[in-house]
Amino acid sequence: MSVTAPLGVTAAGIAAGIKPDGVLDLALIVTDEPATAAAVFTTNLAAAAPVQLSRRHVSGGVARAVVLNSGCANAATGPSGDLVAIGTARAAAKVLGCKVTEVLVCSTGTIGDPLDGPTVAAGVGAASAQLERSPAAGKSAARAIMTTDSGPKETLVESGGFTVGGMAKGAGMIRPDMATMLAVIVTDAVASAEDLSEALRSATEVSFNCLDIDGCASTNDTVITVATGASGVTPDREALTSALTTAAKDLARQIAEDAEGASRLVTLHVKGAVDAAAAKVLGRAMCDSALVRSAFYGGDPNWGRLLSACGEAGIPFDPTEFSVSYQGVLVADEGISTGVDRADLRSTMETGDLDVVVGVGSGPGEATLLTTDLTPQYVEFNAEYS
Amino acid sequence: MSVTAPLGVTAAGIAAGIKPDGVLDLALIVTDEPATAAAVFTTNLAAAAPVQLSRRHVSGGVARAVVLNSGCANAATGPSGDLVAIGTARAAAKVLGCKVTEVLVCSTGTIGDPLDGPTVAAGVGAASAQLERSPAAGKSAARAIMTTDSGPKETLVESGGFTVGGMAKGAGMIRPDMATMLAVIVTDAVASAEDLSEALRSATEVSFNCLDIDGCASTNDTVITVATGASGVTPDREALTSALTTAAKDLARQIAEDAEGASRLVTLHVKGAVDAAAAKVLGRAMCDSALVRSAFYGGDPNWGRLLSACGEAGIPFDPTEFSVSYQGVLVADEGISTGVDRADLRSTMETGDLDVVVGVGSGPGEATLLTTDLTPQYVEFNAEYS
Repeated sequence: MSVTAPLGVTAAGIAAGIKPDGVLDLALIVTDEPATAAAVFTTNLAAAAPVQLSRRHVSGGVARAVVLNSGCANAATGPSGDLVAIGTARAAAKVLGCKVTEVLVCSTGTIGDPLDGPTVAAGVGAASAQLERSPAAGKSAARAIMTTDSGPKETLVESGGFTVGGMAKGAGMIRPDMATMLAVIVTDAVASAEDLSEALRSATEVSFNCLDIDGCASTNDTVITVATGASGVTPDREALTSALTTAAKDLARQIAEDAEGASRLVTLHVKGAVDAAAAKVLGRAMCDSALVRSAFYGGDPNWGRLLSACGEAGIPFDPTEFSVSYQGVLVADEGISTGVDRADLRSTMETGDLDVVVGVGSGPGEATLLTTDLTPQYVEFNAEYS
Repeated sequence: MSVTAPLGVTAAGIAAGIKPDGVLDLALIVTDEPATAAAVFTTNLAAAAPVQLSRRHVSGGVARAVVLNSGCANAATGPSGDLVAIGTARAAAKVLGCKVTEVLVCSTGTIGDPLDGPTVAAGVGAASAQLERSPAAGKSAARAIMTTDSGPKETLVESGGFTVGGMAKGAGMIRPDMATMLAVIVTDAVASAEDLSEALRSATEVSFNCLDIDGCASTNDTVITVATGASGVTPDREALTSALTTAAKDLARQIAEDAEGASRLVTLHVKGAVDAAAAKVLGRAMCDSALVRSAFYGGDPNWGRLLSACGEAGIPFDPTEFSVSYQGVLVADEGISTGVDRADLRSTMETGDLDVVVGVGSGPGEATLLTTDLTPQYVEFNAEYS
């Protein structure tokens, strides 16, 4: 029970025929009454048609419905792609009896292929007839947004009288600024649009924006949050932020664990930077390095690659203060090797998740990033996606 | 015959014992008289000890010798690494009877391991006894700087009375701003330090700096050029630049063709950017994308990944003017698919080198980058390098 767990919301996931073979490919989430809404979108300049539409619609701070489809990203589809996104919102507004601007739209799948408008509109109609407030309906919706995901991703957080439920998809192309991922987080808390927006931004910053799987940010990334207010409970901004953050972190971790072709999860802590932003840039530079992530795959404590990646990140730091620990074992300190036995260390790094701590100085800036190893399977997988 | 082809230079490549098993690991290049010298170095903030030393030494514009070793990068080695680099220059100066500042030093290999000073100094002495002006000596020098290279990389350019000969190493971690690559280009032209420096900078910009294999710039990259003047011919700056550029492009191409675990060479032309610099940034963003390069491996005309990579490059461009051709076949124009049959196209992309042209607008800026596909073999290879 995830997006349908909070009061005041129903969902459906159906096979609309966007994907072949009757696979679930369209999700509809509808609130009983107009709800407070906020969203965070990709920063990619080539943002897809649904992103551009939803960005406009959510600016009003009110939503009744979210339509999400998999199987086609409706990105790089020109003016006809815009028409399909608008048509989808219109179809939902008509069948639900709400304003067009109260409908948000998300798409995910291959970029550059056209999305068939009538197919999606018909799917919206069919989905509206199956709306339910049940765990099964929530799971169907979560399944309908899957692309290369190995399973649906859901979360549930109970917090002092209100509930947060969420679903997400994403299994590759994940990086700071979100990459190919969609998430919808619903709460039955009472919240103003401003509080909700601030809480979402804060939650995203330490969850989805700390994922960095392959350095590729997508055209379609969207995180939407909707507050129905049906619980009657009005948390303060801190409590709201805390609950959204817990939900977002849980979904982000599921995405990282499901990264395409990854064999292990790597938690990279960066410490001692000038500030948190600098720590994040350095962390991303390391996570974006194919050499660094190949070494993670091999369980190779090749810390020089981490240093080299930081050295080209464009952030000033002192290489003589550089330190690295793998699994709690310090292999480099003050910029040079500690002389620890690498063979011993390697044996503790052979399998399982990795914990890497990188010190870049004595400043207060810290960041924690989630990434994965780069594997031969990743390459095979992404060689023939389209 | 490469570095030893120009008049006034001798070389040697020996096994100094830095690498195990008597493998060649130390190269020495010596000019008969003090020669004009210029160099371009890595921009990595964590530049290795030999880079820092050579940067100081070459600022005088005169060199007699270049000492290069493989097997150890002498990077992230702290003050003791600096001592080893200085000691190497001193050893060469002593045995050759020149100034210490006339010796340039380069190292390549694993980062973070100490380089043994006495071993290198003894190697310099042994190499100085084997200096020869022969093709065999040039080839030994080229072999001695190899790390993961599959063979030595040499070039020879004859140009209106003067000769340019060069050698290089590099087979991975290659990217703009040079990454793990070393090159020494010798000419017997007469050239001022200023002309030589300008010519080298210009040549590097369109050769080594257009390589982008895996987005990782190294701590040790160095391109050194030395002009002995022994031909007595003084080319104008244009002729000098042209000859150095031909040599540098030839070496860069050999490096790209030898990229670790790559199965195909990809030439990426970017057109229509605001200026050449913008074209290069967009080109690099595409070459740095693991998804883009996985698609190259699979011969998949998944042009949306190119668009998405450009969209996050931080360079303004109009996605509605985006166009992509693979092997001369236009698959996207004005930001949308041309509807070309992808299956047909895929069959022409299955094997062999790829030629990709990306249009990003109607500006005059162009750039041509050399990259390779990302392969499962690359990952396997880099998983256990150290």
